Amino acid sequence: MPRWKPDAAERLQTAALELFDQQGFERTTVAEIVARAELTQRTFFNHFADKREVLFRLSSVLQEEIVREIAAGDEASPLDAVVRALEVVADRMFENQRAVVARRYAVIAANPELLERELGKNAALTEAIADALHARCGDPETAFLAAGAAMLAQQAAFRQWTRPGETRTLRDLLSDAVRSLRMTVG
Amino acid sequence: MPRWKPDAAERLQTAALELFDQQGFERTTVAEIVARAELTQRTFFNHFADKREVLFRLSSVLQEEIVREIAAGDEASPLDAVVRALEVVADRMFENQRAVVARRYAVIAANPELLERELGKNAALTEAIADALHARCGDPETAFLAAGAAMLAQQAAFRQWTRPGETRTLRDLLSDAVRSLRMTVG
Repeated sequence: MPRWKPDAAERLQTAALELFDQQGFERTTVAEIVARAELTQRTFFNHFADKREVLFRLSSVLQEEIVREIAAGDEASPLDAVVRALEVVADRMFENQRAVVARRYAVIAANPELLERELGKNAALTEAIADALHARCGDPETAFLAAGAAMLAQQAAFRQWTRPGETRTLRDLLSDAVRSLRMTVG
Repeated sequence: MPRWKPDAAERLQTAALELFDQQGFERTTVAEIVARAELTQRTFFNHFADKREVLFRLSSVLQEEIVREIAAGDEASPLDAVVRALEVVADRMFENQRAVVARRYAVIAANPELLERELGKNAALTEAIADALHARCGDPETAFLAAGAAMLAQQAAFRQWTRPGETRTLRDLLSDAVRSLRMTVG
């Protein structure tokens, strides 16, 4: 990313989300996105393969951060290890982005193809978390179940956090969801 | 389905899975599938919108059966209610189909687009289960978490059940997975 435009990807994302929200994902062109962001198509394609990728900009960063946090932790319980990692990442990457995340979800939920893509990214993230846990705790089935359980709690927390009028932090909602999951499963 | 060909959909599915397995999903045509099944294209399109749908033939039946079982049960715990429904359906729909299910999984795992589609179907099934539980137990978050937890155990059980050399029943592996999940989350 050139020094004099440090926020190009973020500006493109903001412009894209506004347009997807207003006129739909299908009907929005890259030309319209770059016009709104006051950038060029060339800059767009330096950052993204296509307009769909704008929505998944943070997926690989998110995965790297979570995996690093898991590897750095020392919790005895695999589920606790993932939950702590998700809490750290919630504060660092999401807490000040509630409106953007809510808008992104609305766009994805309205388009079955985008929703399938999102589910694919989440499944890949779950596998990456399971691998990171497996490297720490040894048993692959426990790692898979702990990763899946943590992602389930995360999903419940995100749903609530992006609801209109919700003011609790994502971290707090994640703790609540883990507590509810323990009661539901236990 | 005409009386004199009661198993057309199943024959088409078997032929399609063999071809997908041998030569890949992308390279297999509907013409090849109907030739192997000794049926016509017309019959194929009476049953399926396209070749992808052959892989998802049982998804809607599966959803109906599980939802009906949940509605018919009287377990106090939402998780137990889903698990019992999944056990009944495991016996009824899957137990004598291990080779077909394993082959289907191999085809889907080899193709990212099919995998996303499968994840979409699973997400829809999870929502349908949550709705059925919600109708019984009242609290939407508990219903969502119980549905997701049961589907997670189901996924772990299917993974193991389709492994080469595995001989335990899907029902038994599902019970084992639920026990492991309780230990992992509890």
